[in-house]
Amino acid sequence: MLKLYDFLDSGNGYKVRLLLAQLGIPYELAEVDILKGESRTPEFLAMNPNGRIPLLEIEPGNYLAESNAILFHLARGSAYLPEAPLTQARILQWLFFEQYSHEPYIATSRFWIALLGKAEEFRDELAKKRAPGYAALGVMDRHLAQRDWFVDGRYTIADIALYAYTHVAPEGGFELTGFPHILAWLARVRAQPGHIGITHHGD
Amino acid sequence: MLKLYDFLDSGNGYKVRLLLAQLGIPYELAEVDILKGESRTPEFLAMNPNGRIPLLEIEPGNYLAESNAILFHLARGSAYLPEAPLTQARILQWLFFEQYSHEPYIATSRFWIALLGKAEEFRDELAKKRAPGYAALGVMDRHLAQRDWFVDGRYTIADIALYAYTHVAPEGGFELTGFPHILAWLARVRAQPGHIGITHHGD
Repeated sequence: MLKLYDFLDSGNGYKVRLLLAQLGIPYELAEVDILKGESRTPEFLAMNPNGRIPLLEIEPGNYLAESNAILFHLARGSAYLPEAPLTQARILQWLFFEQYSHEPYIATSRFWIALLGKAEEFRDELAKKRAPGYAALGVMDRHLAQRDWFVDGRYTIADIALYAYTHVAPEGGFELTGFPHILAWLARVRAQPGHIGITHHGD
Repeated sequence: MLKLYDFLDSGNGYKVRLLLAQLGIPYELAEVDILKGESRTPEFLAMNPNGRIPLLEIEPGNYLAESNAILFHLARGSAYLPEAPLTQARILQWLFFEQYSHEPYIATSRFWIALLGKAEEFRDELAKKRAPGYAALGVMDRHLAQRDWFVDGRYTIADIALYAYTHVAPEGGFELTGFPHILAWLARVRAQPGHIGITHHGD
């Protein structure tokens, strides 16, 4: 059985749990409290030298890191990752957009504010993250103005990856009220069969 | 013919030019001077709403963004992207590592120091990037201590993606002398057939 090392408040981990739920794949959850440094212990670093969750243990001793690489691997052969090469390339484009242009601003702001409770301590850092975070939301909103889903007119892992931290962006201080197309898309994602909330897991 | 919108000092662009050279695929180069804001003009944003190079025009009006998504797409069916699903997942793991844990520290430092010439203006920001940048190099060096290549014992797009900004890390103030396995790997990458330097393109 697959084993997922994860922290339930993590949007990166949530991506994987949401896909596993929608694929109906059972897995064992091993909770890792990143707030207590449990992803930087010698034992964890032996599994993932980069010290991050989520981490998927595909079989005993065989680990795969990076949430979006895990999504791509698990979704193979399913409706969430169509087989056409150019479709997969466009999905990857949005997965890299998510990790480079979206997550470092929106997820990191949420982490400081909502998980660490240190909005005041990180005030200057948070201020610097607002413009690029809103820019990422703008790119998404304009893209969704003409489409229901990010790639190929269907719900794919591109939507799963982008939903994870977008739907909790307000916890990072990002207002979504100015992004009507994002709000409509969030509702469409939530209406997908098998949808679960961010801290849910298993059955 | 493929058309690549690129800035020749960009490591992200170099990844694509290096792979195209090694695949022997001809392409048209359209230079975009990001230092003059040419990737943020209305004309460029109409092609890539995220305003970044490299951007590949696969056919007229059909664009693919994100360097590592472009690598994955172009390398399909070649020796640089073996077909086994788990191998591709591990390659993607390193591509996401590169964009999340490596590029934002090492490439951004190089940009401020070597391309903008503003080491003094960005002194505080640069200081914050040293620890995570060196951490990424440490992860790479330990991985390479036991292997010649990042994935599956062969030169793949994982090596190409990580080579791009690692080999110019000293331009960002990162010393590589403490990373002997990285240095040996850099030499192996340079010795690959069809290798070109960072600002090279075409034949």
